[in-house]
Amino acid sequence: MNVQTTMGQSVPERLARMREVMASQGIDALLVPSADPHLSEYLPGHWQGRQWLSGFHGSVGTLVVTADFAGLWADSRYWEQADQELAGSGIALMKLQPGKPGALEWLGEQVASNGVVAVDGAVMALASARQLEERLSTRGIRLDTSKDLLDEVWQERPVLPVNPVYQHLPPHATVSRAAKLAQLRETLAEKNAQWHFIATLDDIAWLFNLRGSDVSYNPVFVSFALISQQQAILFVQDGKVDEHLRQVLAVDGIEVRDYAAVRQALSQVAAGERVMIDPARVTRGLLGNLDGGVQLVEGVNPTTLSKSRKGEGDLQHIRRAMEQDGAALCEFFAWFEAHQGHEVITELTVDERLSAARARRPDFVSLSFSTIAAFNANGAMPHYRATEHSHAVIEGDGLLLIDSGGQYLGGTTDITRMVPVGMPSLEQKQDCTRVLKGMIALSRTRFPRGILSPLLDAIARAPIWADQVDYGHGTGHGVGYFMNVHEGPQVIAYQAATAPQTAMQEGMISSIEPGTYRPGAWGVRIENLVVNRDAGKSAFGDFLDFETLTLCPIDTRCLLPELLTEQERGWLNAYHETVRERLTPLLKGDALAWLEARTQPLT
Amino acid sequence: MNVQTTMGQSVPERLARMREVMASQGIDALLVPSADPHLSEYLPGHWQGRQWLSGFHGSVGTLVVTADFAGLWADSRYWEQADQELAGSGIALMKLQPGKPGALEWLGEQVASNGVVAVDGAVMALASARQLEERLSTRGIRLDTSKDLLDEVWQERPVLPVNPVYQHLPPHATVSRAAKLAQLRETLAEKNAQWHFIATLDDIAWLFNLRGSDVSYNPVFVSFALISQQQAILFVQDGKVDEHLRQVLAVDGIEVRDYAAVRQALSQVAAGERVMIDPARVTRGLLGNLDGGVQLVEGVNPTTLSKSRKGEGDLQHIRRAMEQDGAALCEFFAWFEAHQGHEVITELTVDERLSAARARRPDFVSLSFSTIAAFNANGAMPHYRATEHSHAVIEGDGLLLIDSGGQYLGGTTDITRMVPVGMPSLEQKQDCTRVLKGMIALSRTRFPRGILSPLLDAIARAPIWADQVDYGHGTGHGVGYFMNVHEGPQVIAYQAATAPQTAMQEGMISSIEPGTYRPGAWGVRIENLVVNRDAGKSAFGDFLDFETLTLCPIDTRCLLPELLTEQERGWLNAYHETVRERLTPLLKGDALAWLEARTQPLT
Repeated sequence: MNVQTTMGQSVPERLARMREVMASQGIDALLVPSADPHLSEYLPGHWQGRQWLSGFHGSVGTLVVTADFAGLWADSRYWEQADQELAGSGIALMKLQPGKPGALEWLGEQVASNGVVAVDGAVMALASARQLEERLSTRGIRLDTSKDLLDEVWQERPVLPVNPVYQHLPPHATVSRAAKLAQLRETLAEKNAQWHFIATLDDIAWLFNLRGSDVSYNPVFVSFALISQQQAILFVQDGKVDEHLRQVLAVDGIEVRDYAAVRQALSQVAAGERVMIDPARVTRGLLGNLDGGVQLVEGVNPTTLSKSRKGEGDLQHIRRAMEQDGAALCEFFAWFEAHQGHEVITELTVDERLSAARARRPDFVSLSFSTIAAFNANGAMPHYRATEHSHAVIEGDGLLLIDSGGQYLGGTTDITRMVPVGMPSLEQKQDCTRVLKGMIALSRTRFPRGILSPLLDAIARAPIWADQVDYGHGTGHGVGYFMNVHEGPQVIAYQAATAPQTAMQEGMISSIEPGTYRPGAWGVRIENLVVNRDAGKSAFGDFLDFETLTLCPIDTRCLLPELLTEQERGWLNAYHETVRERLTPLLKGDALAWLEARTQPLT
Repeated sequence: MNVQTTMGQSVPERLARMREVMASQGIDALLVPSADPHLSEYLPGHWQGRQWLSGFHGSVGTLVVTADFAGLWADSRYWEQADQELAGSGIALMKLQPGKPGALEWLGEQVASNGVVAVDGAVMALASARQLEERLSTRGIRLDTSKDLLDEVWQERPVLPVNPVYQHLPPHATVSRAAKLAQLRETLAEKNAQWHFIATLDDIAWLFNLRGSDVSYNPVFVSFALISQQQAILFVQDGKVDEHLRQVLAVDGIEVRDYAAVRQALSQVAAGERVMIDPARVTRGLLGNLDGGVQLVEGVNPTTLSKSRKGEGDLQHIRRAMEQDGAALCEFFAWFEAHQGHEVITELTVDERLSAARARRPDFVSLSFSTIAAFNANGAMPHYRATEHSHAVIEGDGLLLIDSGGQYLGGTTDITRMVPVGMPSLEQKQDCTRVLKGMIALSRTRFPRGILSPLLDAIARAPIWADQVDYGHGTGHGVGYFMNVHEGPQVIAYQAATAPQTAMQEGMISSIEPGTYRPGAWGVRIENLVVNRDAGKSAFGDFLDFETLTLCPIDTRCLLPELLTEQERGWLNAYHETVRERLTPLLKGDALAWLEARTQPLT
């Protein structure tokens, strides 16, 4: 990536123009986070201002611009990419690492007392804005969240996406939107709140049984929602909800208004009324439309908790989706094994072939994230993505890491498998075996209902720590139901805060994906999805355990079976028996033969 | 315990007198916590006002008195005892349990708006007072922390203890008080603070290499300390530090003043100066003596962190103390096995005999806590204590739980073992085996340096959860060096907050003590002490593991060896080999024979 862009304006030119605007408005520092008004993981182009202004294309990074400094804070995943993309831009790469100041600390330390820091309040969560304001105020620095300075310098700014909104219908939608609204309204009544305002796209899509395609991989649409006991208003850009759908929604008492009308609607909430919001999931800018006399009732969105608890009806569809996904993987793997060594196969070919195999499966909608097909050294980058310009040919010896997933009408998948290429080394097999031990250890765990999910992480890591090995990412994230592949509130990561909403409840789906990354050499990750299910009640309380949902062989040619305990071998053999039983009816020919070969028990 | 006391004044009479005082001072509710000005675990009689006013002798409980209500909040450990002791007192037992309001919530809900709640600020931590004040203020209730109402009604109030203070000397004291003071002063300088005020007795005893016997089991003395770059003032009641010790301390620049002089000394800190304090470990009452212009620098006491990290010098003494303690236990167990069934042995006899065996060992000072010898059903109460009035005879079949420990000049011990009596049942053996699995699982764990200790708890519990079993207490607490048997900052308990200071550091000593409690039937707990030691550095970071310090056989007659994995059996056999090697030189006769028999490997 060159600092010169296709639009003919370079990053230094953009920065220069931005500094003029800042100077004219008396702003000492500008903060540009990677965020949008919905605080989504994937941003529509309209909200990729940080990328536009800095030239850095990584998905997470924070830009700070002052009169004589520009810096881009990024975590270690992005250092190599940022180094390349920022070259010649005049923007310093600020490496995010423990003990070094992040962008917010930097602002608190470097901006002159009584200075002004600007950030677009429309893309900063209320909770984050409060924290930043508190930090700055100790040095008399003022935070201005009232301006979108980007709009003044970004001429070719993309418009908002206008893809149609569609229904998630029965049988795949197992709870009606009327029932979901009724449940939400009960919570509203309990909290003695007149309104609930939602800005997060997956909460809205789940609540209304609607889906869209405004951002990559997540089947959501750009919108807001405002709910009371009498009203349910959905704010979506005109033209995205057709007349038929509008009428369907009206039957359930749902009114559709234009996306831009949300500000006016918020401003009409009466002083003295109470509005329930999640301060981490609504921006300060939007809430700025409320009358000063409105009271905020703060807490996690009730839909976030409800959405995370998949019902038995959902799970039946998910189990079918997992079978289809597993069958697609078997077809791909059979093809890969037959052709590897006979023709040129690259990381991109893997993505194409695997995506095509998924696309042939019933009820497939899209990928659930960008496929990671990473050979040897590329696998050491947990968020690697092969591109036209830079990708590896799969040849010689080693390990191919494939992390991929699909969106189906009946569920969302996310799976990582290790594929042997030629002869993997002893060390590579040791890493795979150790990571598998971690995955098995947690997969087998029974645990008290309601335990805070970060507390379970050590169970997966203990067998890995035993060899002085660790990995920097969490062990598990929540997964939606034909919805975002990353969703809360649970998170199996010892680095995460043990917040009350991370409590494990029945029906939550999580990934279990320990790993090992050896920079410049290879990376290992093995990932299944699991669901929390009832595991009985005793005098000591209620217990949950995990049902493994993902169905695909774990290639034993990457393992050193002698390092597995009897229990671990037993788990793996039982898993492979289940995989063979469940996938056999969906396969034939080479793919079936591959499944049978790869699910033979270890002895 | 009868409501009539030996002093001739009944609890109802005391409450009536207290209510008169409250009415005369316009106080609507009085809160009496179990606390002293040092926020100690064990309270001198002078500060046992909650016990005096309520007649409830449990160590933890909170009393609330209003004009027409009196309630004592206690957790489940104390319900049976409180039921008996409160009978006829007019005080309601308020059972502390999840989802029900505690004393502070009750005050916030039940006291009339604009009412006044009084608590003696001298015995309430600054952090707790702030929380209570915030809670009450939402309903316009005022918190008055300026009065010690107990003093006005408690005629025969015990005086403060006057036991002599003595030095903890080399070789057992391995770091000089001068070096400890110098280290503390470096932190003072870093924090840009002029003063550090300490109220916690173990921090003070550790810092000055002094010990005392003012409270049961903890070798500390009632005192405060105020430190600056130039001064180090120790506030101890006159007569407790003799002239020789006073001179020894003076050589290190330490000045001894009377205990009561602390208030004046605090009042003389100049406005604008900065005082470092731990808001959870200093009372609001004491800090009330500071000038309003003094700035507080809040954080965990630096001595709490330093004290928790035992040096290699300390550990050499601790290993010797563990050998002596293990030898005392072997002598006791040999006696018990020879005499059990031939004479009447009660839980009290166990305490006497075991205490005597410890007392014969070199460098023994005292017990480190009240021995828990609990047969069958009594073992189901984690904090059971046998008394003259109520104790079991050890006869028939079952399990005897013995949780005990000693203070030695070279270390503090704490160990729990299960003793078979007659023929323990299959279920009892299952419980013992499962608990041992939990203890072994955590004992074998390697983990990243600096991990927050609550996150490790699940490793001990996983094998126990597997059978739908759990226990309500933490798995491990920190342990001092000839110091309190319970000390922070680390705590291996998933119920605990994951505060930064709970991070695991080299040299910290903790207990590992999982359990299983079956009310009315039996209880199981197995406990060793372990120390965090360096376990190597790799590309993935620095690691620690546990060295098991405690040396005493784990009776395999309480186990079902077929339920142990090969790894678990291997751990137990290796442990028993170490125990035999280390204790053999200290034993002879029956005790040596017992050691040899009880350390035979499982095959």
